[in-house]
Amino acid sequence: MRRKYSRNSGSARRGERILKKETIERIRKFSADRNWEQYHSPANLAKSIAIEAGELLECYQWSEEADPEHVRQELADVIVYCRNMLDALGLDEDEIVNAKMNQNEKEYPVEKSYGNNRKYTEL
Amino acid sequence: MRRKYSRNSGSARRGERILKKETIERIRKFSADRNWEQYHSPANLAKSIAIEAGELLECYQWSEEADPEHVRQELADVIVYCRNMLDALGLDEDEIVNAKMNQNEKEYPVEKSYGNNRKYTEL
Amino acid sequence: MRRKYSRNSGSARRGERILKKETIERIRKFSADRNWEQYHSPANLAKSIAIEAGELLECYQWSEEADPEHVRQELADVIVYCRNMLDALGLDEDEIVNAKMNQNEKEYPVEKSYGNNRKYTEL
Amino acid sequence: MRRKYSRNSGSARRGERILKKETIERIRKFSADRNWEQYHSPANLAKSIAIEAGELLECYQWSEEADPEHVRQELADVIVYCRNMLDALGLDEDEIVNAKMNQNEKEYPVEKSYGNNRKYTEL
Repeated sequence: MRRKYSRNSGSARRGERILKKETIERIRKFSADRNWEQYHSPANLAKSIAIEAGELLECYQWSEEADPEHVRQELADVIVYCRNMLDALGLDEDEIVNAKMNQNEKEYPVEKSYGNNRKYTEL
Repeated sequence: MRRKYSRNSGSARRGERILKKETIERIRKFSADRNWEQYHSPANLAKSIAIEAGELLECYQWSEEADPEHVRQELADVIVYCRNMLDALGLDEDEIVNAKMNQNEKEYPVEKSYGNNRKYTEL
Repeated sequence: MRRKYSRNSGSARRGERILKKETIERIRKFSADRNWEQYHSPANLAKSIAIEAGELLECYQWSEEADPEHVRQELADVIVYCRNMLDALGLDEDEIVNAKMNQNEKEYPVEKSYGNNRKYTEL
Repeated sequence: MRRKYSRNSGSARRGERILKKETIERIRKFSADRNWEQYHSPANLAKSIAIEAGELLECYQWSEEADPEHVRQELADVIVYCRNMLDALGLDEDEIVNAKMNQNEKEYPVEKSYGNNRKYTEL
């Protein structure tokens, strides 16, 4: 039987729960050990992220409920390819995310966006 | 004119270049301030990741070359929705990625995978 | 205001409502006139289908309801790129769809699949 | 060994090679026989198209070359879900494609688009 995800709350969400340095090195070593960096062009990694995003979406194809273990695996796959792409492009995750958040905060001012999900072009 | 991405090398890739705690809190505050967590069901976030992955892919639709700034924005969007989904499900990024890497390392033994990109089902 | 899609029924669904020969020629002429067939490698068209599928999905990002006109446009984009890909590969739409339906009918026998949406690997 | 797709030419492309009426009825009967129309909300079908588009893209994940049989199957899956979505929304394929081609022809005038793949917003 499939268990329903419930939104978690409280302390569980307060942790940063972020990748450790060793994990980032583990991801890099995994590709290096297999001589796979040759395949990791940015374009191939963009395809890979889209492919894994499709597999994550498949968990929810017919229902709002999904198998939690399957979801964890597919979300991890998306994250690993995002790390590969950051590395392939020499990007700093924190820098590009903050640059995007600057833009998001401008495009979605609180007073216009509160409690609605309209796109910024429709605000 | 569009600049071509070249794979970066050396020291640039050695940094962890990972999200800071403040950035994770910034992502959470952005949604909370707009009362948007109501829309962040796991299924909606899986859709959102797929949608942004499609926009990232669009940067490479007709060419291996892409506009670097556009790529950074779209990759950041994928990462932000991944963070939203981790939060919505109460997941620890480091934990799920390491669990998946355990699996990857078993499915892709170095001696069988070195220098080829066959799927584990075809090894 | 956004209208909700309701499933249509009866006679509206009974028509074949399929592309006319002239429309298929129009799609081909559109690319030929612009000298765009050079970009239509199967791999680029696979990306294009995924990109447009993401835009179609965006119509439903936060809701089961969508803007009907926007949906029609995005679904048409997916269909046009499917036609481009059939042409690029020299495939007969009717032939490949029937071959796949043969497979679907074997993998999903009515007695096991009636009223449930489990994947054939879980039947 | 994987065969490389070559663009086909000449007479093979001149046929319409389009779904027959019986094939469209076969697709409808397949769902009806299994009582699956209950799952075919437009939003679920938009997800399904994106999922199958990801599987089609996977054929080209690391290479411009792909297994032809695999490509045919995945492209057929995209097409079948497009047919399901047309039916769920009561749309006429020919009508929505022609409406989109009207728009495409306006946004991409031959004199500005000939031999380049810039988006209409950049023309």
